[in-house]
Amino acid sequence: MQVPTFSDVEKAHERIKPFINLTPVLSSISINNILGGVFFFKCENFQKVGAFKFRGATNAVTLLSDDDARKGVATHSSGNHAAALALAARNRGIDAFVVMPDNSPLIKIKAVKGYGAEVIFCEPTLQAREETLKNVVDKTGAVEIHPYNNFNVIAGQGTVAKELAEEVEGLDIVLCPVGGGGLLSGTSIAIKAMSPETNVVACEPAGADDAFRSFYGGRLFPSLNPKTIADGLLTSLGTLNYSIIKEKTDQIVTVSEESIVEAMRMIWERMKIIVEPSSAVPLAAVVEKKIDVKNKRIGVILSGGNVDLEKLPF
Amino acid sequence: MQVPTFSDVEKAHERIKPFINLTPVLSSISINNILGGVFFFKCENFQKVGAFKFRGATNAVTLLSDDDARKGVATHSSGNHAAALALAARNRGIDAFVVMPDNSPLIKIKAVKGYGAEVIFCEPTLQAREETLKNVVDKTGAVEIHPYNNFNVIAGQGTVAKELAEEVEGLDIVLCPVGGGGLLSGTSIAIKAMSPETNVVACEPAGADDAFRSFYGGRLFPSLNPKTIADGLLTSLGTLNYSIIKEKTDQIVTVSEESIVEAMRMIWERMKIIVEPSSAVPLAAVVEKKIDVKNKRIGVILSGGNVDLEKLPF
Repeated sequence: MQVPTFSDVEKAHERIKPFINLTPVLSSISINNILGGVFFFKCENFQKVGAFKFRGATNAVTLLSDDDARKGVATHSSGNHAAALALAARNRGIDAFVVMPDNSPLIKIKAVKGYGAEVIFCEPTLQAREETLKNVVDKTGAVEIHPYNNFNVIAGQGTVAKELAEEVEGLDIVLCPVGGGGLLSGTSIAIKAMSPETNVVACEPAGADDAFRSFYGGRLFPSLNPKTIADGLLTSLGTLNYSIIKEKTDQIVTVSEESIVEAMRMIWERMKIIVEPSSAVPLAAVVEKKIDVKNKRIGVILSGGNVDLEKLPF
Repeated sequence: MQVPTFSDVEKAHERIKPFINLTPVLSSISINNILGGVFFFKCENFQKVGAFKFRGATNAVTLLSDDDARKGVATHSSGNHAAALALAARNRGIDAFVVMPDNSPLIKIKAVKGYGAEVIFCEPTLQAREETLKNVVDKTGAVEIHPYNNFNVIAGQGTVAKELAEEVEGLDIVLCPVGGGGLLSGTSIAIKAMSPETNVVACEPAGADDAFRSFYGGRLFPSLNPKTIADGLLTSLGTLNYSIIKEKTDQIVTVSEESIVEAMRMIWERMKIIVEPSSAVPLAAVVEKKIDVKNKRIGVILSGGNVDLEKLPF
């Protein structure tokens, strides 16, 4: 299985720079005081479409040959990848076909349509999503861009940690959420190349702990009935992602739902920024004292900020 | 009545720079697209204590003679000025006495105490607040620092607009919320000195429209039973503030509660930052089309980000 190297991340970065936001790294004296470490938050909630997903999608779309691109791109997603792929396709002037479950929140459907994608609805099951996507691809000839189990997507996601490590030196730890593993595998590639002594620690909801079980169990275990407020982390680890993570990630810890909400609230109240529950999972691990941060410099990847204001957990 | 000049704002800026955050100016392509102007948001929600108030309080506290400072500072406030004065006093190593109504939200009381101030409770009436403050000042000899009707506080608040105009050239309009008028008077002094052709437009909730009535009525009308979700703008315009505003502010418009909530939601959803309702009042004026922004460059001062997450209007 061919996996991206740091050189692929570097090339991805040059390729996507004209399209992405260079997101800020923020810090908060009060969070440092409360938790006892020195934290650097990489704010992908300020990325275009409100999540890091735009990086990987842009890299994948940009790399298509003109022949492939002509027929458009396709995916199934009810989340940030759908919007990311739609905007990346629009930026290249090609079609995007997005299969969405028919129970998707209206706000997400509107966002994807707003970026110009064609939305195809299906039953809200994985089987229906995959079958519908296959039909769309068969009919249109569009190229499927998987949200995380994709070489070019992973290389694109690695640019988040690359920017973080370029801006902040001497990080002892980088904390990263894990769902399908796109962000985590890219982060691990970048950090281990740029700063091998930095520990890459993945953080996962206990209610969706397939990465934890796979990492320590020595083989890929799928997610079974995952349940967590961190709706970006419900997916199962991809095969390509797993093969990278088992080599380059140092540790995976799991966190409770209560800690996720507490960490999310801390970020909102202290930093005055909006992050989605998935983004709060790394800080939740610190809140739970699963990670020793005393006198350490900790990079935290805030993956996105797309949250339904009508359904806040506060 | 002696009023601050731009030179006072410049001196205040040098004086407070070691203490304040240089807050960012953010923009949002989607808000530009929705509203049809080019907006530059000056983010005082990222200021220390979460609001611009820290600038004025720091300037006033720093300017006290050692003799005056020794006995501490005092104010009555249930809002951002209380926390601002408490932190400014702690930074100088002096006492702060803050009179707060006994129905203040616990979170605000904790914040003020957290910055080391002594909190004195009173009945929740203006009369009780003023009498209690007088007693505290008589007893302690502390210097009263008024939240807005104060020369040095106004000069400090003017540094927000100074930073905005230094960072963004060619602004056609600057929009600023108005409550007691500290921020608006400082903003008007700075903008009219730095960029006289820029229109300074104050925005006020229709439910607390004393500045609007005073500005167009030709004399100071107090606030009568003000009622608005923008809890930072309930206060009546100060005399010193009024004398500046009537000379240097170009226009005052009022907005509905519905528009304030809509604008607040737009800022949260599109910019992924947390602002308090008072901060959304300027953009509410654009939402209501009270201000023509077409093809214009508009500076918007986001005054603060302290909002109770349990009581959101969404």
